Amino acid sequence: MSDRPDSPADFEARLRAIGDRQYHDKHPFHELLHSGGCTPDQVRAWVINRYYYQTRIPMKDAAFMSRVSDPDLRREWRSRIEDHDGRAPGEGGIARWLKLAAGVGLDPDYVRSEVGILPATRFAVDAYVRFVRDEPLLPAVASSLTELFAPAIHKNRIAGLLEHYDFANTDTLSYFQNRLTEAPKDVAFGLQWVMDNARTRADQDAAVRALIFKTEVLWAQLDALWSAYVEPGRIPPGGWQPGQGLA
Amino acid sequence: MSDRPDSPADFEARLRAIGDRQYHDKHPFHELLHSGGCTPDQVRAWVINRYYYQTRIPMKDAAFMSRVSDPDLRREWRSRIEDHDGRAPGEGGIARWLKLAAGVGLDPDYVRSEVGILPATRFAVDAYVRFVRDEPLLPAVASSLTELFAPAIHKNRIAGLLEHYDFANTDTLSYFQNRLTEAPKDVAFGLQWVMDNARTRADQDAAVRALIFKTEVLWAQLDALWSAYVEPGRIPPGGWQPGQGLA
Repeated sequence: MSDRPDSPADFEARLRAIGDRQYHDKHPFHELLHSGGCTPDQVRAWVINRYYYQTRIPMKDAAFMSRVSDPDLRREWRSRIEDHDGRAPGEGGIARWLKLAAGVGLDPDYVRSEVGILPATRFAVDAYVRFVRDEPLLPAVASSLTELFAPAIHKNRIAGLLEHYDFANTDTLSYFQNRLTEAPKDVAFGLQWVMDNARTRADQDAAVRALIFKTEVLWAQLDALWSAYVEPGRIPPGGWQPGQGLA
Repeated sequence: MSDRPDSPADFEARLRAIGDRQYHDKHPFHELLHSGGCTPDQVRAWVINRYYYQTRIPMKDAAFMSRVSDPDLRREWRSRIEDHDGRAPGEGGIARWLKLAAGVGLDPDYVRSEVGILPATRFAVDAYVRFVRDEPLLPAVASSLTELFAPAIHKNRIAGLLEHYDFANTDTLSYFQNRLTEAPKDVAFGLQWVMDNARTRADQDAAVRALIFKTEVLWAQLDALWSAYVEPGRIPPGGWQPGQGLA
């Protein structure tokens, strides 16, 4: 293999190919969810576990900012935290996720307590936060580029949920609707930053590995859900039991 | 010594006594600075080194947020980063510090490059960022409570600099003027949080130690300045040399 860096176009194509190959839109849980095949409890399990991921995203972004000495880059990145935490109580992506939780019959306070999160969900998500805290800035930014692939899955999800589930409406799905505009703004900046800062072949390879790592973080969460609540449906100790945390 | 916690009033008095005893307003460098006794180069050395502290404050605050899973606490804390980084280029405390740098004849780009920062300044400031990243949340918040003591020193500084130095005006001193309103808002929240969360005697002791640690971080920076630029005036390898970085 050559040590020369790929051209910008080839490098970007390498990054995008990761999405085609292994983004979690390919996972059978999403097919089940979007096609209406999930039971109410399977939807609830997804909402409860994904909540953990949602809450850790701003912590991950803060961990990134804690390592950035450039005020301009920090300012740019800060909007991600605002998108999730909001500018006032009840605003932001996490509050919108809790509307979804209420919509599927869960008590938002139960979801917020983080009781019942599958241990494998915690391990995967915590690995992501640690990655961004510990790895160099280039792979840290590159790991966020799964947002390149997110709008497509969000559009499919909105359509699929609206078609198949009574709980789905513009209010309960507002999280995904907002991400349709937030994610492209973030990823345009992140992709450009990675393109500008991945100068060597080694840099490009590190960015590719980081993006693969991130897809693994997402995939592992759905494997854990599937194992616990679909097949074999063996809920591990500590995992949410259907009937718990209902509104 | 009793294991019972102090009453809220006694605990707050213990915290405030730390300021009376060892806040860096007691350091002779500040007496020299505020009384007009600093040479232009001594003022420049202070501006260059303090810039490093200014830039690390938002990184410290981001490190704190990276460990907070409560969106409400994160949202409250985020305003500190906004105060320093601003909401647009050219705004915020760091930009205002660079106005002061220009006012004392320094090239802002030189200051921003972080060349010439005394190694002892870096060590002290980096220790603070690490403390907030690694210690439990209670000492992390408690370490920010030096803001309790800051408005008094900022008022003295504004008055002293305006009286004694040609570079001083409302534009070059805007950093301190803004802190007069920002710091009390932050510290009111931080003090209440520490009072609410320091339930045991051990908690209170940890908060007291954290605040003492922070005063040591501030004091060490002025000792390093004094050693390099006042007495004996032996600039260590790597430290700013008068004449460098002028506009």
